[in-house]
Amino acid sequence: MAAAAPPLKDELDIVIPTIRNLDFLEMWRPFFQPYHLIIVQDGDPAKTIKVPDGFDYELYNRNDINRILGPKASCISFKDSACRCFGYMVSKKKYIFTIDDDCFVAKDPSGKQINALEQHIKNLLCPSTPLFFNTLYDPFRDGSDFVRGYPFSLREGVPTAVSHGLWLNIPDYDAPTQLVKPLERNTKFVDAVLTIPKGTLFPMCGMNLAFDRDLIGPAMYFGLMGDGQPIGRYDDMWAGWCTKVICDHLGLGVKTGLPYIWHSKASNPFVNLKKEYNGIFWQEEIIPFFQAATLSKDSTTVQKCYIELAKQVKEKLGKVDPYFVKLADAMETWIQAWDELNSPAKAPAKAK
Amino acid sequence: MAAAAPPLKDELDIVIPTIRNLDFLEMWRPFFQPYHLIIVQDGDPAKTIKVPDGFDYELYNRNDINRILGPKASCISFKDSACRCFGYMVSKKKYIFTIDDDCFVAKDPSGKQINALEQHIKNLLCPSTPLFFNTLYDPFRDGSDFVRGYPFSLREGVPTAVSHGLWLNIPDYDAPTQLVKPLERNTKFVDAVLTIPKGTLFPMCGMNLAFDRDLIGPAMYFGLMGDGQPIGRYDDMWAGWCTKVICDHLGLGVKTGLPYIWHSKASNPFVNLKKEYNGIFWQEEIIPFFQAATLSKDSTTVQKCYIELAKQVKEKLGKVDPYFVKLADAMETWIQAWDELNSPAKAPAKAK
Repeated sequence: MAAAAPPLKDELDIVIPTIRNLDFLEMWRPFFQPYHLIIVQDGDPAKTIKVPDGFDYELYNRNDINRILGPKASCISFKDSACRCFGYMVSKKKYIFTIDDDCFVAKDPSGKQINALEQHIKNLLCPSTPLFFNTLYDPFRDGSDFVRGYPFSLREGVPTAVSHGLWLNIPDYDAPTQLVKPLERNTKFVDAVLTIPKGTLFPMCGMNLAFDRDLIGPAMYFGLMGDGQPIGRYDDMWAGWCTKVICDHLGLGVKTGLPYIWHSKASNPFVNLKKEYNGIFWQEEIIPFFQAATLSKDSTTVQKCYIELAKQVKEKLGKVDPYFVKLADAMETWIQAWDELNSPAKAPAKAK
Repeated sequence: MAAAAPPLKDELDIVIPTIRNLDFLEMWRPFFQPYHLIIVQDGDPAKTIKVPDGFDYELYNRNDINRILGPKASCISFKDSACRCFGYMVSKKKYIFTIDDDCFVAKDPSGKQINALEQHIKNLLCPSTPLFFNTLYDPFRDGSDFVRGYPFSLREGVPTAVSHGLWLNIPDYDAPTQLVKPLERNTKFVDAVLTIPKGTLFPMCGMNLAFDRDLIGPAMYFGLMGDGQPIGRYDDMWAGWCTKVICDHLGLGVKTGLPYIWHSKASNPFVNLKKEYNGIFWQEEIIPFFQAATLSKDSTTVQKCYIELAKQVKEKLGKVDPYFVKLADAMETWIQAWDELNSPAKAPAKAK
């Protein structure tokens, strides 16, 4: 594989939200350098972000977002890594890989460095199997297959829309768990990829995530978090819940498992608790809402599904807190902005 | 752990269906010897099965089954390992572990022999999480927990009824896959246990399986297979589909993954194809039937659920083939026999 061209080199963008210099890219250089980076600066636009030499990138700060989206920029979070979804919107590629700037290259049990991006691409390019569980995990991996009793009519699988990777070292825990288990580290390398079954929700983490923009992009909205909002650290969760409901409706697959990245540093649990505490209450109502959500047959595109879901959010979760009314409006704005930037006639620089 | 008493020593039976001398037990001696074995002889009752010295066991052949169950013995398959479920019925223990006699002790990646039974017991004694997917797999394993975004109200989990173990070396493939991939071996040690989500069916293999008899025993009927039946090698699948639907209805959990055993020898794919070919057609109708099956609120016990399911099998699958009418009747007979042997007043030896 070493001599082969990087897979999907011209069809994939790497989206990185950040507030600091991107020194972490040095470690990723052998894997990321052939690809185009979209960097979304999530703090003060006056600050200059340094990107190591040799990377091909475009960088957007808040001023750029405001300029490109105009009033619709209100749907993009400020001072929160949720702003990364702006990068999904301005990309013109079929695939997105997004990674946090505190994530480094992990090693497999043999000590070999893991090319996370390559594994995500493998996950995305082979089908998912959401309709029946395969006990030997992903039947499309080398050395594996469908086991006895797996219906033959389901063995074609469905297109994979999302590849959710995991983290060695610092696990992605909520603030209460961080507080209770400050020393816990994830040391278990589980050599598996699996499809999350249809009808099952999961906590999607945005740290190490890839998806097919053509198939599911408009559902990957990371919500309203951070500055001026009553909640944080639920951006990726929100995107995951919406995405999974829409994937289930449209017959698309979501994979989780490999690849691992090395998550270097736990965020401050006290700060996290402040961001999360509303979410900890609200998710008790949000999850049943998404578990029960159904979409109509007329919703045949991701956009239509998302608008329908936004209406249901307003109607059903609006009772939980006025925040959800605002969020539902932002969901609609997001789709309008997405369509504006992604209509064949317009390029992002010309959008108002 | 070496010096500790074997876990659940007096609360677990090991059920083994066989047609040959049980030399394979030699390799399992350090792990199985403290436990009681129930051996069910699935062929000619005139043949003597030799059991290595030092094991505590009871052995039932066809004559014993006929004597104990009388006319109800018709529900127990003959000349097929499906007869193993008779062992579940005569056991008086809370837990069952069943294993095939061509399964040996596997090694983990460090070269250590895997105590499969101990891992099954761990799986059964900690809760399952069927209502929401945890991306770090079983949150109750050491070094793991629920990840960010997992609703706190669901973290108690539900009681685990079934622990489904996997196989290194020869994977559990159907005849067509065996024919197409005669050399494929499972070499991937996946260090994970996970809950199969509610509403998702899976192909349950009976080679390396443990369950809580009190919670789910009466659903573990392995159907009518082998001698005189139009189908074989679907015994465990049938039990798995019924069990999963009933676990979902009763709020019980099913885990899959660890432990691995070493499956030594592939069965003959030509013989298997002959046994399986009806099943290969039928499962295309059976799976949608079980996916759509719902049980009424009145079905509050496993027995009631199973009888209700048997009625639905007769009504809906009876149209597919008359075999399912016979099978539905056998399902009812099985429950009658189960209740007869497991009522407090009667001991198996006295049952007619």
